[in-house]
Amino acid sequence: MDKQLLKNALSPFASLTEEEFDFFYSLLKFKEFKRKEMLLTAGNVCKNAFFTAKGLIRYYHVISGEEVTGQFFFEGGWYTDYESFLLNIPSSQNIQALEKSSVALLSNDSLQKLYIEVPKFERFGRLIAENAYLGLRKKTEIYTHLSAEERYLKLLQERPKVIQRVPQHYIASYLGVKPQSLSRIRKRIGA
Amino acid sequence: MDKQLLKNALSPFASLTEEEFDFFYSLLKFKEFKRKEMLLTAGNVCKNAFFTAKGLIRYYHVISGEEVTGQFFFEGGWYTDYESFLLNIPSSQNIQALEKSSVALLSNDSLQKLYIEVPKFERFGRLIAENAYLGLRKKTEIYTHLSAEERYLKLLQERPKVIQRVPQHYIASYLGVKPQSLSRIRKRIGA
Repeated sequence: MDKQLLKNALSPFASLTEEEFDFFYSLLKFKEFKRKEMLLTAGNVCKNAFFTAKGLIRYYHVISGEEVTGQFFFEGGWYTDYESFLLNIPSSQNIQALEKSSVALLSNDSLQKLYIEVPKFERFGRLIAENAYLGLRKKTEIYTHLSAEERYLKLLQERPKVIQRVPQHYIASYLGVKPQSLSRIRKRIGA
Repeated sequence: MDKQLLKNALSPFASLTEEEFDFFYSLLKFKEFKRKEMLLTAGNVCKNAFFTAKGLIRYYHVISGEEVTGQFFFEGGWYTDYESFLLNIPSSQNIQALEKSSVALLSNDSLQKLYIEVPKFERFGRLIAENAYLGLRKKTEIYTHLSAEERYLKLLQERPKVIQRVPQHYIASYLGVKPQSLSRIRKRIGA
């Protein structure tokens, strides 16, 4: 795994000495996932936070037999089902690699150890939790107030990488529409 | 304001020396609110986190001319519109005292100062952010999956203080039903 990428990803959250970073690094596990391989299956506790060093992951729920994609995460980002991770309860989420992905895993036990050994990581934990909160607020807001077409336009504007790299049917499942509806939306807005 | 109550409320989050607590205390402002007085009106930035030392507060949105209550907070608890507070953007929430209330106000500026001067508070901030995240997840879950009657039963079971102290029409606005519907629900379940 590319150490520098991890360092860069941490730097906005905590300014670490070499020693502190090495301790952090020693707590990680590394795993390669094939395309479509699962990082977590619903019903299991999400025991790890995932850092995607290379590739692309998504999480989704299965609702009335249909996959509803919650979010996509590209290289350089963390993801975990924070509720399951914090409370040690079964997750309702499925987390899946959409491309061949290199992932670093940080277990909750390791994270708690990190908080004790390197209190600086409390700041990292706080900022991650704040971002998770803000992300959830934004997501709830978007789902409550925007139509599928408005959500697609927002995605185009704010996260063009999703449009470029994610297959259409996953984008449809993210917008909460059938693939045919997404095609109609794209035609209508000329995208 | 009762210092001990504040100390007790902080103790699960951070074990502070007298000096650290006094510094924290020096950053607070204190205010008394009359019944129905507003702590925040929608459209303004929520510049403070509120600690209710005595009394009862709620937050609500106005949706299509109707008040929809988001949550009730009793003495001993913190509340802020965390999104508005963190991002310094106008809030869509109204925060109101439902009883005569004694409230401690901690501004975001003071909180940032606290993080720098007493890094121990990073832990406090992390746990508050985690709780805020978990609360939002739970709330979203409840709203998505439970009927008004199920939500009322959950409230009875988990937060009987709300039923005891909050006037009926606010509880109805929390459940998202008209007061008459709440009466029918109460009759049906014999509460």
